[in-house]
Formats: sequence, C-alpha cells, structure tokens
Amino acid sequence: MGNPLVQAGDNPDIIKERQAGTFDVRKMSSFLYGGEEYLQRRAEILSFVKSKPEFRDPIPVEFMTREERVDNAAKKIVAMTENLEEIDASDFFGEGMYFQSLIMGRDLHPLSLHFVMFIPTIQGQANDDQIDEWLSLAITRGIIGTYAQTELGHGTNLKNLETTATYDPKTEEFVINSPTITSAKWWPGALGKSSNYAVVVAQLYTQGVCRGPHPFIVQLRDLETHMPLKGVRVGDIGPKFGFNSSDNGFLLFNNYRIPRKNMLMRYSKVKKDGTFVAPKHSKLGYGTMVSGEVQILDYQTQQFRLFPQLARAFAFMFAAYEIRDLYMKVTEQLTYGNTELLPEIHALSSGLKSVVSWECAQGIEQCRLACGGHGYSLASAFPEIYAYSVGGCTYEGENIVMLLQVARFLMKAAEEVRRGSARLAAICDYIGKQGSKHSSLKTWDRYSDEEIIHDFEHVARNQVFRAYDALKRHQRESTLEEGWNRASIELCKASRMHVRLYLVRNFLQKVATAPDASIRAPLTDLTRLYAFDLIAASQGEFLRDGFMSEAQADAVREGIYKSLERLRPNAVSLVDSWDFDDIELHSVLGRRDGNVYPALLEWAQRNPLNKTEVLPTFEKYLGPMMKDGRSKL
Amino acid sequence: MGNPLVQAGDNPDIIKERQAGTFDVRKMSSFLYGGEEYLQRRAEILSFVKSKPEFRDPIPVEFMTREERVDNAAKKIVAMTENLEEIDASDFFGEGMYFQSLIMGRDLHPLSLHFVMFIPTIQGQANDDQIDEWLSLAITRGIIGTYAQTELGHGTNLKNLETTATYDPKTEEFVINSPTITSAKWWPGALGKSSNYAVVVAQLYTQGVCRGPHPFIVQLRDLETHMPLKGVRVGDIGPKFGFNSSDNGFLLFNNYRIPRKNMLMRYSKVKKDGTFVAPKHSKLGYGTMVSGEVQILDYQTQQFRLFPQLARAFAFMFAAYEIRDLYMKVTEQLTYGNTELLPEIHALSSGLKSVVSWECAQGIEQCRLACGGHGYSLASAFPEIYAYSVGGCTYEGENIVMLLQVARFLMKAAEEVRRGSARLAAICDYIGKQGSKHSSLKTWDRYSDEEIIHDFEHVARNQVFRAYDALKRHQRESTLEEGWNRASIELCKASRMHVRLYLVRNFLQKVATAPDASIRAPLTDLTRLYAFDLIAASQGEFLRDGFMSEAQADAVREGIYKSLERLRPNAVSLVDSWDFDDIELHSVLGRRDGNVYPALLEWAQRNPLNKTEVLPTFEKYLGPMMKDGRSKL
Repeated sequence: MGNPLVQAGDNPDIIKERQAGTFDVRKMSSFLYGGEEYLQRRAEILSFVKSKPEFRDPIPVEFMTREERVDNAAKKIVAMTENLEEIDASDFFGEGMYFQSLIMGRDLHPLSLHFVMFIPTIQGQANDDQIDEWLSLAITRGIIGTYAQTELGHGTNLKNLETTATYDPKTEEFVINSPTITSAKWWPGALGKSSNYAVVVAQLYTQGVCRGPHPFIVQLRDLETHMPLKGVRVGDIGPKFGFNSSDNGFLLFNNYRIPRKNMLMRYSKVKKDGTFVAPKHSKLGYGTMVSGEVQILDYQTQQFRLFPQLARAFAFMFAAYEIRDLYMKVTEQLTYGNTELLPEIHALSSGLKSVVSWECAQGIEQCRLACGGHGYSLASAFPEIYAYSVGGCTYEGENIVMLLQVARFLMKAAEEVRRGSARLAAICDYIGKQGSKHSSLKTWDRYSDEEIIHDFEHVARNQVFRAYDALKRHQRESTLEEGWNRASIELCKASRMHVRLYLVRNFLQKVATAPDASIRAPLTDLTRLYAFDLIAASQGEFLRDGFMSEAQADAVREGIYKSLERLRPNAVSLVDSWDFDDIELHSVLGRRDGNVYPALLEWAQRNPLNKTEVLPTFEKYLGPMMKDGRSKL
Repeated sequence: MGNPLVQAGDNPDIIKERQAGTFDVRKMSSFLYGGEEYLQRRAEILSFVKSKPEFRDPIPVEFMTREERVDNAAKKIVAMTENLEEIDASDFFGEGMYFQSLIMGRDLHPLSLHFVMFIPTIQGQANDDQIDEWLSLAITRGIIGTYAQTELGHGTNLKNLETTATYDPKTEEFVINSPTITSAKWWPGALGKSSNYAVVVAQLYTQGVCRGPHPFIVQLRDLETHMPLKGVRVGDIGPKFGFNSSDNGFLLFNNYRIPRKNMLMRYSKVKKDGTFVAPKHSKLGYGTMVSGEVQILDYQTQQFRLFPQLARAFAFMFAAYEIRDLYMKVTEQLTYGNTELLPEIHALSSGLKSVVSWECAQGIEQCRLACGGHGYSLASAFPEIYAYSVGGCTYEGENIVMLLQVARFLMKAAEEVRRGSARLAAICDYIGKQGSKHSSLKTWDRYSDEEIIHDFEHVARNQVFRAYDALKRHQRESTLEEGWNRASIELCKASRMHVRLYLVRNFLQKVATAPDASIRAPLTDLTRLYAFDLIAASQGEFLRDGFMSEAQADAVREGIYKSLERLRPNAVSLVDSWDFDDIELHSVLGRRDGNVYPALLEWAQRNPLNKTEVLPTFEKYLGPMMKDGRSKL
C-alpha cells in the first residue's frame, strides 16, 4: 500500500516490509497527528531546521565530552532563539516542541528553565512593578533565569525547604542563607554554569516569624563577567544518567542580601517595616517548617520496592553457589567421560542466566528509582550498575534464546512423562509428579517450605504441559519449526516458571541449613517475601482451575505486607551482611557512614565542569546574547 | 544487635537502623559467604588493594572521558598483573572476581578477553605444537589476545558467520577475508585498541569446499609499533550504555594471509596439500553456511516484545491529545472562576504521568533488548532514549507519590458511593456503576469495545473498593496517616487500574473515529493487543471471583497471539506513520533506509578513540608489559 518512505537504494528487507502494509501510511499519519495540515507544518519545520547549518551538531553528541555537550547546546539554543520568528516555539504542545526536539535532541539547554519556569513564575507571581522590572529583561533574554526550589535533602515536600530569607527592616533587604548542607539548592536545570538569575524558593522570616516558603528573584552572577557574586556558591552537580548537555546545578547562599522588592509580591507581601501581608484568597496558609521527617524506609511503598530486591539478592547468591558446585561435579564427571548431568546443567544455567540477569536489572532500577532524583545522578552509581547488569540480558546468550533452550529440555521431559517413559533428572522430576489439586496455604504465617514448593511445582508443571500441548497442536497444524515459533511465548513462560521453582526451592533449602535461629529468622522472612511476591506477580497462574481460592490469594497479599513489616528493622543489617566496602560499591549514596549529603556536595565539586567558575560558553554564546537582549530595552 | 559497621561520626539515622537489627551481622555474612574463612580472605584482599596506590583511580571514573577511562583501565590492569602472586586471580568464582571488581569496578579492561577467552581457547583447541608456540607467550602476557567471533550482522548463530579462511596449498597459508560489511567482526572486548592477537572464527574453505566455522590464531598488530598489519582494519566500535573502559572493537580483513599452523588443529585439521581431516568424535559436522535468515520480526517472541509497545505508543498519544483538550477547557473555565474540573484533571494527569512514564521506559528497554547487542551501543540511541524517558518517572512528581494523589481522589469517590451520595466526575462514574458479575468475552475476535470497557471497569472498581476497605480497616486499627501508609500498595494498584481503564477507553473511542476502514482495521488490531496484553498482565484480577473463566483466560491469550499475527504485515508501516525523520530519531539503527550495517561501521569510525591507530596507552602500559613478558621466554 501507499508508503511515501520507499526510496531507491533502501535495504530490500525494509522495502518488502513497507510494501506488505495494508494501509496508506500518509492517511494514518494524518489521523495520528490530527489532520493533514499538521503534517504539512511538520514538514515545513523540518525543512527549515535542515536548512540551517548552525542547528547541526559538528560531531554526534555521543562522541562529545560533557564540556563539549554543554557548549554545543548553548550554541544551538542561541541560534534557535535568533530564529524564533519562523516558528511559534511557545506552542508547547505542538510545533514548539517538535522544533526544539529536532534541534536539541533528547536533552535540555541553558534556556530550558528560563522559558518553562523562570518567565512563567514572574508572570504568575510578580506584581505590576516587578513585571515591569523583570519580565522584559527575561523575554529579550537580557538575563538567563532558572527556578531553584528543590534542595539536596528535600525533593517533593516544599514545606521542608531549609533555605531562609530573613527580612532586615534596617536596610530593607532580605538575607538569603543556606544554613545547612542539606539546604543547598540541587538539580535546577541550567543553574550550574548558565544562569545569572534565579527564582529562589526560601522560607520567609519576618518579625521573627516563619511565614513559609516564598519565591524571590535573586541575581547570582555578574552581568558582565558572569562571575558568581559574593555570598553565592554555585556549580554543576555532575554527570547524570541522561540530560548531560544540561548544567543542572547546586547553589548555596552565605547571608546574601537582596532588596525587598525582589520578593515576588503578587500574593504575599512584606511591607517596609517587615509587616507580613498574607494573600487574600490563600487556600493554604504556609505553616512553619516541619522538623524531622518520616524515615523513608517506613513507607510501605518504599519497602515494597526494595525488600523484594533484597530477597532476590540472597536467593540468587545461594543459587550461584549451587550451580558452581554442580558445575564442578559435572567437570569432574566429564573427565571420566560421564556426560549424564550435562543437559541438566546446561538447561539450568541457561535458565538462571536469563531470569536472574533480567530480575537483577529490574531490581536495580527499582533501587535507583527509590532514591528519587539522586538515583539519577552518576554519584549514586545506579545508572552504571544498571547498564552493567542489564548488559547481561544480551551478551553470552540472549535471554529469550536462553529460555527457549531451557524449553527444549522441558519439552523432552514432558514428552517422556506423557509417554510414561520418564527418566527425569532431579531438577525436573516434579514434571512427572502428581500433586494435589489445591494449595494447602491456610494463613500467611503457616505456609511451610513443603507447601510452598508444592504450589510452585504445580504451577510450573501446569505451564510446562500447557506449552507442550500448544506446541504439539501448532506442530500438527504447521511445521515443526513454525509450530515451535507459534508456541514460543508459552514455552518461554514455562521456562521462567521452571527457573522460579528452582530458585524458590533452593532458597528454602539453603536457609534451612542456617546454623543459628537468630540468622534463620530474618532469612525465613526473606524466603516468604520472595515466595509471596512471586505468587502475587503470577496470581492468575495460581488462581487457575481453582488451585488457589480468593481467600488464599488474599493471604498471599497479607503475607507480602506482613513480611515487609517483619523485615523492616533488619533492612539495613541484611544489606550490611553483604560485607561491601565503600570502594567496592563506589557510590556516593551507598556509603557505610550514611553521610550522603556532604559527600554529594564534595563529589559535585570535583566534576570537571566546576574547574572554572565561567565556561567559555559564556564568552562565545550566552554573554553576547544577553548583552544584545539588554541593549534592546 | 552486633553490627561491626557502626563507627563514630556516622549519620545518626543509619546508626539507629543498625542498632535495630535483630541478628549478628557478622554471623549472617559468614553464612552468606560460606564461612568465616571467606570473610577473612575478603578482608585480606581488600586491605591489600587499599595498600596499593596504583590501583586507585586518580579521579572518579564518571568524570573521565572515554579516552581517559580506557587509559586508566590499562594502567590498573598492568598494575594488577604485576601483583598476581598475592592473589589467586584465576579463582573465577571466588577471590579472583572480588579482587578484580575492587580494582576494575563495574567495567572490563584490556586483558578481560585475554584471560577469559583467548588463553582458554588455546588450551582447549590447540594441538601440542601450537600450545608450545602460543600458550607461554599468552600466559606471560607477551601478547594480548582476544576472541573474535560475532560479526556485525551475526550474533547468536555461529553457522551464519561470513568471514572466510581459504586455504592456499601453494604457499601453505590461509587467506582470511571479510567479504561484506556484515562480516566485520564486531563487539569483541579489547579488540579495538589493545589486542595485538585474536582467535578469529572463520568459515574454513579448502579444496573448494566450505568446512564450517573454525578458530584461527591471527596477529593483528605489529609487536613493536602496535600499528595494524597490512590487510587488517581494526578499531573501537564506539561508546556504549556501559563498559566504557573497554575498547570493544571491529575488525575487517582484506585477503590477509596467515601460516597453515595458525589454524587451531586439536580437532579438525588441514594437511599441507589442503586435505581436510574432520575430528574423530565430532558431535556435529559443521554444515556449510546457511544463506538467508528468517526475518527476526517473524519470531513470535520478538513480536511480543515489540508490538505491545507500538500499541502503547498510539494509546498514549491519543491520551495526550485528550488531556491537552481537557487542560485547555479547564484553563478557560478558570478564567470564569469555575474550578469544577480541577480535581479531575489533577488526578488524571498525575495518574497518566506515573503510568505512562513507567510503561514508556519499560517499553523502550524492550525495544532496545530486541536489537540484541546493537541495542547496547549508543549508536542505537536506545540507551539515551531510555535515560531520557525514565527520568520522567522521578522528576515533576515522583511516580509513587503521583499514584497516591490519584488514590486520594479515588477514595473520595469510593466514600461517596458507599454513602450513597455520589456525584461523580465523568472520569470515575464507573465507581458508582453496577456491572455484570461475569465477563461476556466469548472468543477473542468477538469482544466488543463496550465489553472491553465493561471488564476493565469491573476490575478497576473492584480494586478501588478493595483498597478502600483496606484503608478503612487500617485506619480503624491505627491512625489516619499510618492506615494510609499500610494501605498504600493497594491504593497504588487502584490508581494504576483506574488509569489503565482510562487509557483503554480513550484508545477505543479515538480509534472508533478513524475516518477510513483501511486505517481503522490495523488500529483496531492495536486496541485488541493493548487490551489483551493488559488483561494477561493482571490475569489474577480478571479471574478473581470467577469474573473470567479459564476458557476466557485462554481466549485472552489466543487474542494476544492472533493480534500479533494480524499486526505483523503492518508493523513497519505503523511505525512509519509516526512521520519521524532520521534527524529526529538520531539513531544509526532506526533509519528510514534500513541500511544499518554500513551506517554502524561509518559511525564507529568517527569515534574519537579511532582518531589514531595507536593510543598512548600502548607506549605507557601495554607495550612495556608485553615486552617484559616476551623477554621472559
């Protein structure tokens, strides 16, 4: 069908694919984007961007250092702002976003926060005099502003911000101060090296009373030299998982004074004498600062993110020991020409490789996300740990291919069982067993090792035979090979269930050997969490054919919640048991002493972007742009 | 309880956590690592590593350029090999791995493949003469070798390798050749800049017959100058998601000659006259090359990875339009002081933000993994797209926090319904509805839009009330706040179900407006795949209380498989409909013309590591190490 993308010289495979389509691609595009006129406009913007060499990257950004990326982004955004007449960049939903994404790629730039936060905050929060003073200056890009709210120790909860703005009626000034390391402003885009202004959100103190967080316009750097002003400490927070063209920054104030008029006063006001005037229609009067926060580990959602990963870590480690021992045994047997255990270890190691590498990667991401914004910084080491770990899903045998190899072994076993001629290896003898038709789980705290194994065996066996039957049916209906293909999702599922059964069983067996009740208790909690979590994740399989009742499914959920509670006091000690040294983890956050905030600040200061206070980018691009902007006023 | 990690100056919160533990951490460590003696040994290795300044990174690796990382890894590995007497680094399972991870961190180094593949291959595949010639040279590190098997166009399937080794009896040499771009060796660790030798796996041709893939020892670079030898083209494949201290490489041969004795001849042999001698106990005679491969998109497992992401992309785009329109409406109403829709849009946008950002990130990872090894290269752009996208799970409202905000809205609605005083916004009117107790799904291809919506409403409503009841129970048993915390996993689940219902309904409604049957048909396939996939992912919820029967659950699975089949011919055209230009995607793989292999090779050559044939690393570290090694023979 109609596909305008086919051109001479294209790869023949992709031409074939395009020709096989049953619909007109242009029509679909038009439906997707809401009409032909939008496609037309996209094409115009695209051709405009392509026509401007200054929008092009001199080399692919992935080959640039961070310094080069920051410089390149500044160059492009200045070129872009010089061409704004052509494009309505303010149309955030539509062409503005397309225009920007074509030029900037998947990254931010020195003016990201200026347009998205700094200007809108002035528009929304400034009174008429302040709009006169700041808005034109910002719109002509005579200054670059950002929005500094989040702090090193405080992300989502505005009430906990620590930066203070204390009114001094003698000089009619606010004294902006960062009383602690955790009060350092942290993360704002373009704060590190590009911006010379910021809206700073600080706790307002006047007449000795805290009036809650309010926004202030604060000049950070000299307009001519771009050097940070006295009392201002500012820099880049260091490399991140992504967005590395952006100079997300930190900012600390040492009793830095700004005029009274710099508090954005459209709603709350502070009079010359320090009288505070609350907004008329304020929905919420800001309270004073909340002192002390709930330990984040006390949140059930946080526990649910983290503790199953802890359980996995133990389960996987114990499986690694087991497979190592099996490997040694096989190696020894091979020297006598005995290959009996080879298929078994091949299937087991292929399956473990696939399941473990994937669940590790997923678990690492959950740990990273549990750290909030700091998990996104390379300081946490999580981005690197994730990339390191997830590589294992692909190299040395792609995971799906591995699962299909396990499936060959399982299908052979299933065939033998069906034929009544089963001589099953220990690892898959459950396939030939006859289990009970119902789980005997009664309550979450009376679910024995044997019962757990029985239930996992049931579900694995069911899926093995479901896959087997699907395979045979498809192979009858087509060819051996195509039948295998059509059953492959079911086959992979069978392999996963098989491996999970192995992991659960091995985990339970290993924990049973713990020499000491005080050790065995928390480990048992981990095994329960591990099992309940797996059951909940495949709840449909356990409910099928009434194997588990609704009440039992509820007991499983209850088991998760209770296990989380029980593990809570031991969470840190269980991590400590891994005997990781700080040099092994190499993470600014994952440190023995728990003093993460000073360490983050110190780390950020070592980053190459902070070697000088002013980057060449200022001389080359941002300085002239601002000078030009100011000259227009 | 006993925790040896507590020290003066630690963060008080972490001290408290450590003191709350119920077990002795040292005992647990001992159980985890298999005995006190292992902990002892770990401590010894750790203190040895800490005592050697040459193992330390001069600055944190995350601040280094790739050139600096490669250089730093070479420096450390040479220092490490000089200290091998102290540590049994060959004990791969145990202390060798720990030793290496302490020094190298989460990365490879110039000798990774030398130890793990090059030496073992010689040991396993060389005959006695060859062992005499190569093994000591390798063990003393007089040369650095790697293992070059995978090719640009061929990963898992050995049979498809294209590199040829053609025996020339006149000169008693093999002619190694790379006949195509896809035959370039690609990915081998340390191949790019470090190794001067490789085991190259190539299709052996002798007496005009292809004898299948065989291993050859091939010198790549001059021992003194480290320059690539004539007929050898070698370099680094460019930056990757992780492992950036490693110079994974590419390698092409232009009729490059090696002596007959360089074929590893422990099993297969080629005599002087070219006679091929197959191994006696060969399990599998290698066949000749398989010409033509199955299109990878024909694999069901590959379709299952990719097509649901395609469905999501459409569903999310249509939801974005809807929320944009709603936003405009609310903004307009606000100018008249009408705040009626505010809670609704707040809940909807919070929920969509959370569900969509997470599912996008997950979907991108699936796409990346579906590309195999190439997805791991920054050339694919997937690592960057993932990092870009997954950031959205955290910034502008952490996802769990967002879900809990949706839950507040839902709990208010549930309370109103229970009280009989419901005045529900359109988006949650289903909470007050009374649905049928059973799904009316009959067969996968007769499942109407209304039936789908009905079933998703049922499951969302059920979960909303389950969360509501849990919340009330917990709040009775503790405090309002702690009750909320204890119900929070159930609350998040309710929010997710609510958002998924919204996404499904909106997707179906939008597709119903498609102006043209030829467009509507593939879109309808996408809606079905989307719905079936979501149902299967939450199968337990749909099976609960017998809402769906086993037969219906089977119909859902069938629906997934059939939808994949139906979508197959339109897969590429549906992607084309997004009207992406190559400059927008900025991916060497995701290119309109499909000519990915030449583009990958070209991209790799532009990478800064390839500016010179020989890195300073050779002069400084690797050259002297090899010279020293050779002098010992």
